[in-house]
Amino acid sequence: MQRIAVFPGSFDPFTKGHESIVNRFLPLFDQVIVAVGVNSTKNYLFTLESRLAHIQSLFAAQPKVSIETYQGLTVDFCKQKKARYLIRGIRNTTDFEFEKSIAQMNQTLSGIETLFLMTDPQLAPVNATIVREIKKNNGDVGAFVTNNQILIIQSK
Amino acid sequence: MQRIAVFPGSFDPFTKGHESIVNRFLPLFDQVIVAVGVNSTKNYLFTLESRLAHIQSLFAAQPKVSIETYQGLTVDFCKQKKARYLIRGIRNTTDFEFEKSIAQMNQTLSGIETLFLMTDPQLAPVNATIVREIKKNNGDVGAFVTNNQILIIQSK
Amino acid sequence: MQRIAVFPGSFDPFTKGHESIVNRFLPLFDQVIVAVGVNSTKNYLFTLESRLAHIQSLFAAQPKVSIETYQGLTVDFCKQKKARYLIRGIRNTTDFEFEKSIAQMNQTLSGIETLFLMTDPQLAPVNATIVREIKKNNGDVGAFVTNNQILIIQSK
Amino acid sequence: MQRIAVFPGSFDPFTKGHESIVNRFLPLFDQVIVAVGVNSTKNYLFTLESRLAHIQSLFAAQPKVSIETYQGLTVDFCKQKKARYLIRGIRNTTDFEFEKSIAQMNQTLSGIETLFLMTDPQLAPVNATIVREIKKNNGDVGAFVTNNQILIIQSK
Amino acid sequence: MQRIAVFPGSFDPFTKGHESIVNRFLPLFDQVIVAVGVNSTKNYLFTLESRLAHIQSLFAAQPKVSIETYQGLTVDFCKQKKARYLIRGIRNTTDFEFEKSIAQMNQTLSGIETLFLMTDPQLAPVNATIVREIKKNNGDVGAFVTNNQILIIQSK
Amino acid sequence: MQRIAVFPGSFDPFTKGHESIVNRFLPLFDQVIVAVGVNSTKNYLFTLESRLAHIQSLFAAQPKVSIETYQGLTVDFCKQKKARYLIRGIRNTTDFEFEKSIAQMNQTLSGIETLFLMTDPQLAPVNATIVREIKKNNGDVGAFVTNNQILIIQSK
Repeated sequence: MQRIAVFPGSFDPFTKGHESIVNRFLPLFDQVIVAVGVNSTKNYLFTLESRLAHIQSLFAAQPKVSIETYQGLTVDFCKQKKARYLIRGIRNTTDFEFEKSIAQMNQTLSGIETLFLMTDPQLAPVNATIVREIKKNNGDVGAFVTNNQILIIQSK
Repeated sequence: MQRIAVFPGSFDPFTKGHESIVNRFLPLFDQVIVAVGVNSTKNYLFTLESRLAHIQSLFAAQPKVSIETYQGLTVDFCKQKKARYLIRGIRNTTDFEFEKSIAQMNQTLSGIETLFLMTDPQLAPVNATIVREIKKNNGDVGAFVTNNQILIIQSK
Repeated sequence: MQRIAVFPGSFDPFTKGHESIVNRFLPLFDQVIVAVGVNSTKNYLFTLESRLAHIQSLFAAQPKVSIETYQGLTVDFCKQKKARYLIRGIRNTTDFEFEKSIAQMNQTLSGIETLFLMTDPQLAPVNATIVREIKKNNGDVGAFVTNNQILIIQSK
Repeated sequence: MQRIAVFPGSFDPFTKGHESIVNRFLPLFDQVIVAVGVNSTKNYLFTLESRLAHIQSLFAAQPKVSIETYQGLTVDFCKQKKARYLIRGIRNTTDFEFEKSIAQMNQTLSGIETLFLMTDPQLAPVNATIVREIKKNNGDVGAFVTNNQILIIQSK
Repeated sequence: MQRIAVFPGSFDPFTKGHESIVNRFLPLFDQVIVAVGVNSTKNYLFTLESRLAHIQSLFAAQPKVSIETYQGLTVDFCKQKKARYLIRGIRNTTDFEFEKSIAQMNQTLSGIETLFLMTDPQLAPVNATIVREIKKNNGDVGAFVTNNQILIIQSK
Repeated sequence: MQRIAVFPGSFDPFTKGHESIVNRFLPLFDQVIVAVGVNSTKNYLFTLESRLAHIQSLFAAQPKVSIETYQGLTVDFCKQKKARYLIRGIRNTTDFEFEKSIAQMNQTLSGIETLFLMTDPQLAPVNATIVREIKKNNGDVGAFVTNNQILIIQSK
């Protein structure tokens, strides 16, 4: 049986932290699906198209990684993909408490397990909310996001 | 003198976690008031009427529990009800830091004390925000909310 | 039925933080037992006799408070005293995680509930380990322990 | 070379906690700039003018403190002011995790260091979000904000 | 290539929490080695022989699980066993901070990754230190340790 | 008036994390005293002489740094040295809660303030306890301690 993992998120943007998590989990799985959640009521800074193109650019040479969008519950998407594992990185205790609740509720809902890696220390400060703030203020986010020039800010 | 406690919240929805907190605090008090805060600037997922009906259904057989709505400061509501205690459950450290600030500021404002119980371990993951997310995506929240079929999603 | 609470600890020494917790819980109970745990394999800085005399001096005017020693499991002592509640203060998240485990294991073992109050903010830094360190180095612990001159350091 | 520190925030309102942080950092610096961030997409409870007047009233007698507004990235403002340090208080672990990420990302972006003091224990519960909530409900915030009568709630 | 994981610990005793972690990680690996660290300077409550017999009794029907003892660095044991993963459960933020440091130092030392699962909520309070305390005081640890009657307290 | 800071610790050993904290605080002070606490009841892994030689080797080119030993309370040592500041790094929330208590008790005892920097992200996992464990098991600690070959393990 194939070992399939789903890495869910809004990835607005997909940071070096996210990139590292995919790369570190890859040897354990036959397929890793980067699953970009689409929620019509949420405001994103970057267009969906540019976020997908950006993630694709990072894993172009890696056939075990695919990129998909989904709507609805993450565990429903996993079932549809026959993925038995969700994968996540944890940076700090605030992340931890949040991820713990979601992982345990997902387990109760569906039996799907969430596996965690500790974020690489030098990437632990990287936070998508702060990256967006820097980008909105025309700061340089090159230290936090690979190939970030592909990302396009939404016009409102 | 009557021992009266107020259990304040928006209860959107009132989860099995909340239910357990009321039941565990009951032996200590003569009356426990479940106080549903109403804030006109906040968006709730479930109608106020259905939230009240839902909570009433859970404590119908329990004369020491009453359900009320309130506006304004929680400590003002307590004074009006002659309640000297607020009661709360704590699930994790994020809850803890938030509840600590509120409890200490309420104590400074009014002298009213907040008593805490640790959430029952198997209910610790239950989080109203995640329950709402599951409900909006047509997931089954039966594991997290008793009698949840009474709750009615607001039309916008 | 009498409402009896047990406040367990080694109280080496009984700080202003402990004192405040007893005083704040008192209105809720008919009796509060300060229960000094005695563990023959542990090294205490202050003699048991002086710790007991010290606590007695603090609550001499308060008939609802009694001071006792105990050995063995805290929940066994509670059952013997017909106390249905343990009471504790929490200062910070390190305390919280530790107290949560103990409270939940005690609940599983015996059904006895642990009630918590947030430590008064200005007493939150007070830590018996640091108080002992200051005392051993001849520092003045008067800001942290009432009547501390009663306490006698053990000769070895 | 002058030692200049920037204390950034939205200060909606500037609480006794903020006031204490400035006063405690002052002996270390030649100049402390209280930098009020202005973000046109954010809703503030108090008018910018009243927030500035309020902060000025607190440090009128203190020539080393100046008050300024800024837009854009905090580190860009620091560079413009030739400030090599940001200063912040930390109340609890939730603050800590948030401040750690920001400090480390600012360090990566600019080399500017963030210095921290632990919030004075009795001011640790003071939280601007809760202060705003109290003010909106006509509660008395005098225990949390000096000279708070200067602050003017925005008309919408 | 075989997927081998090492689950290291002193397991004094091996609780239901540990048992659950092994069972939940099993589907992901071809072999899971429960590695009992032996440290001559540490005092254990239970004899090594009884700890090993106890763990063996729990996984007798599970050929993918083996039980071994080791001395020295955990990462050296992993290399010797050609295991590329360490596995651990996390209960709370205190665990988290401790496990994060060890995982990151092990990664730096050896490239070996540590995978984490969140402890099953109802097992999160189970803590080997508290279990030992209960056992020493003749309490019943049956709720926390399967087959605990096999464990033999060391004579001193 | 000279700006003097004391950096206290047992430094068993002085890690790259400690080294970085001294270097980052240096521009703010005229003198930084690395103060090695000597406690006759504590067991150290490395001899005091080798720890002192090790720290000296790291700051030989830095005239603003001096290394001293002290006994007794840290705040008494500060007063004797006319230092108004203690300096410390914080890695994580466990550190934070511990350092907060000590800083606030030191402030109450003496008025001496403790300034904090967030540990450099890639050094955050470095933990003296784990370094000692690695060293005792003949592991290579070169990634965590500069010039570590100077350190001599105590004979017992």
